[in-house]
Amino acid sequence: MPGMAGYDWITFTSDYGLEDHFVGVCHGVMARVAPGVRVLDLSHAVAAQDVRQGAMVLAQAVPYLPRAVHLAVVDPGVGTGRGMVAVEAGGQVLVGPDNGLLVWAADALGGVERVHALQNPAYRLARVSRTFHGRDVFAPAAAHLATGVELAELGPAVDPGRLVRLERVAARVDGGRVAGSVVAVDHFGNLALDLRRDDLELAAGDAVQVRIGGRAQRAVFGATFAAVPAGELVLHEDSFGSLALAVNLGRAADRLGARAGDPVEVLKGAGGP
Amino acid sequence: MPGMAGYDWITFTSDYGLEDHFVGVCHGVMARVAPGVRVLDLSHAVAAQDVRQGAMVLAQAVPYLPRAVHLAVVDPGVGTGRGMVAVEAGGQVLVGPDNGLLVWAADALGGVERVHALQNPAYRLARVSRTFHGRDVFAPAAAHLATGVELAELGPAVDPGRLVRLERVAARVDGGRVAGSVVAVDHFGNLALDLRRDDLELAAGDAVQVRIGGRAQRAVFGATFAAVPAGELVLHEDSFGSLALAVNLGRAADRLGARAGDPVEVLKGAGGP
Amino acid sequence: MPGMAGYDWITFTSDYGLEDHFVGVCHGVMARVAPGVRVLDLSHAVAAQDVRQGAMVLAQAVPYLPRAVHLAVVDPGVGTGRGMVAVEAGGQVLVGPDNGLLVWAADALGGVERVHALQNPAYRLARVSRTFHGRDVFAPAAAHLATGVELAELGPAVDPGRLVRLERVAARVDGGRVAGSVVAVDHFGNLALDLRRDDLELAAGDAVQVRIGGRAQRAVFGATFAAVPAGELVLHEDSFGSLALAVNLGRAADRLGARAGDPVEVLKGAGGP
Repeated sequence: MPGMAGYDWITFTSDYGLEDHFVGVCHGVMARVAPGVRVLDLSHAVAAQDVRQGAMVLAQAVPYLPRAVHLAVVDPGVGTGRGMVAVEAGGQVLVGPDNGLLVWAADALGGVERVHALQNPAYRLARVSRTFHGRDVFAPAAAHLATGVELAELGPAVDPGRLVRLERVAARVDGGRVAGSVVAVDHFGNLALDLRRDDLELAAGDAVQVRIGGRAQRAVFGATFAAVPAGELVLHEDSFGSLALAVNLGRAADRLGARAGDPVEVLKGAGGP
Repeated sequence: MPGMAGYDWITFTSDYGLEDHFVGVCHGVMARVAPGVRVLDLSHAVAAQDVRQGAMVLAQAVPYLPRAVHLAVVDPGVGTGRGMVAVEAGGQVLVGPDNGLLVWAADALGGVERVHALQNPAYRLARVSRTFHGRDVFAPAAAHLATGVELAELGPAVDPGRLVRLERVAARVDGGRVAGSVVAVDHFGNLALDLRRDDLELAAGDAVQVRIGGRAQRAVFGATFAAVPAGELVLHEDSFGSLALAVNLGRAADRLGARAGDPVEVLKGAGGP
Repeated sequence: MPGMAGYDWITFTSDYGLEDHFVGVCHGVMARVAPGVRVLDLSHAVAAQDVRQGAMVLAQAVPYLPRAVHLAVVDPGVGTGRGMVAVEAGGQVLVGPDNGLLVWAADALGGVERVHALQNPAYRLARVSRTFHGRDVFAPAAAHLATGVELAELGPAVDPGRLVRLERVAARVDGGRVAGSVVAVDHFGNLALDLRRDDLELAAGDAVQVRIGGRAQRAVFGATFAAVPAGELVLHEDSFGSLALAVNLGRAADRLGARAGDPVEVLKGAGGP
């Protein structure tokens, strides 16, 4: 069982998918090191090698998670010289590659306090492969930290100012018009946008025009999907505070033929004919 | 740790899928409220917003589950005025929307005993979104109940007779012929039907004719897939007691071009040419 | 709680997928029998009824898993006369059908020590269906073993030499050329081959020619994906020690139009034009 200095929980986020045994093998590695610790799978469906999406998922979720070691692996640079780090923030720890994946979540937890590189071979598997550092380096480090190993034991300190940071994409705002993009399409076909309600000062019931995929669509800004009749397009603030497009009792992604990465413009008002 | 009055387990069923972090975030909310309780994921692959399918999954499964708070969220009416309830049945509790999702499982547990509305803000998250009540209302309620909070603490009593109930679809039976529909296509391509063996008084080895997708197919009623040669169609009683169509070592859904919702007729006897 | 004679963990591998409640119901059955034992899901995405792939997944993973009862169900013969067994190996136990699924993992654990058939009705559910032995026979047996039930209690001893064994496919090696096949396509589109680095005595940087799908492709043998420029084909030793084809920052399966089962030839040297 973890002592006062350890953690009861490890959360685990990756782009490993569930079609293989990658996630299960990492669970096995953690169970061998830290049998008393519980592992909470946040998501393994981050788009393959999409560090930005992984960073957003983790930052959005972390306020809802228990105090934990947060293990996250979205790592297109595996086997190259990119750093591997443990980041302390708000009395919790994030473990993963130094590619921007962890920093937004660290900010959400109160800001980066200390960073150490994962270099001590005592806290890795005996044989480290070139392509599966989740199993060989990150999962063992997370598990050892959860059992109470001190951050500084893992390797040398890293200057927090040298961590790789992803740029935030600011929405272009122009009068009653904002331009952004589709960040993610969820299970229900809803489109999350990198736009905020405040960008347009929208009120419930406002008519808007949405330009996506070369076409203009009318929609209503509503508090819920049911603010519009079945089959109609609704712009709303999603449960994590982003603007999102949905079709009441339908799938916005199918209706609009839209995918992650597509540019979107939203104009206040019903627009022309 | 849960006391005598609480529960060691929460089971969790939804239509959230695993492509997003919705399920993981709900786990996080429950871990924060009830760190000693274990969460058993029954299924998160209920077809999106298909309350009837969710109700069947839960009712079929509940005899095989441990004593628990059963959290279930298939909620096309999220953000509208539909009720949110905790239903006591057979000394266990079901938590979810009042749209028919919970009642068949309550019947399977011995019948509805008490119902309370989820209205007490002390057992919700501080900020309740309009579109993610699984995270903000249902998961916290389930977790508080598991830690031993009394049902009546969650909100006012609701008359059990006023719970929304889904109608059961009765198979049309006509001499040696029954008409029903495909309820679900499983991972192996097997088609579960809303028909029972007793509807036709079938015995192993009986020849049947199956009308589906505008075509008639001969099949055999068998106790196992292997009752017919590889690649042949077999009608059998599935492991939850429903009639089902399978292809031995193949996929009935592909062979018949069938999907959930398709009408099906089964006739006893080999039928005409 | 499991005593000295039991196990803290059950690992669970199957071809059940996550589109249904099959996995969740098995978890429920185990929780009822062995509430203090934890279940680690290794993979439920073994290709449907692909016993060979399931056997490989389990054998590759078992060195990374905690001491456990390893429950595995890939069972095309369910409902026929195939055996159902518990296999002791290296002080651990494997539970599943006697169709070759368990034996490679037993070898990886140190070799089969004892085998008992799962025949004692006291360690099955009261009603055993014809098509869901995972729920009705295998999961209860695994859970009872984890709580400390002795192997011999489950049923009569079976001669280890009579267990069904799958043949290993040996790569055809011919001078600087080997012939094998694609064993699996992973989540990232990488192709795992049933070939070993030693088959060709490859060194980092060696040029190779890969024949797959009727076409010849040049590739480089590299230690990491990043050994080649983005979009280029790399042959490498994967994290479980098999040769694999990848495209740096891309999907080899899409680029080569390849699927599990496809034949592959690898020739050392850049080959002709």
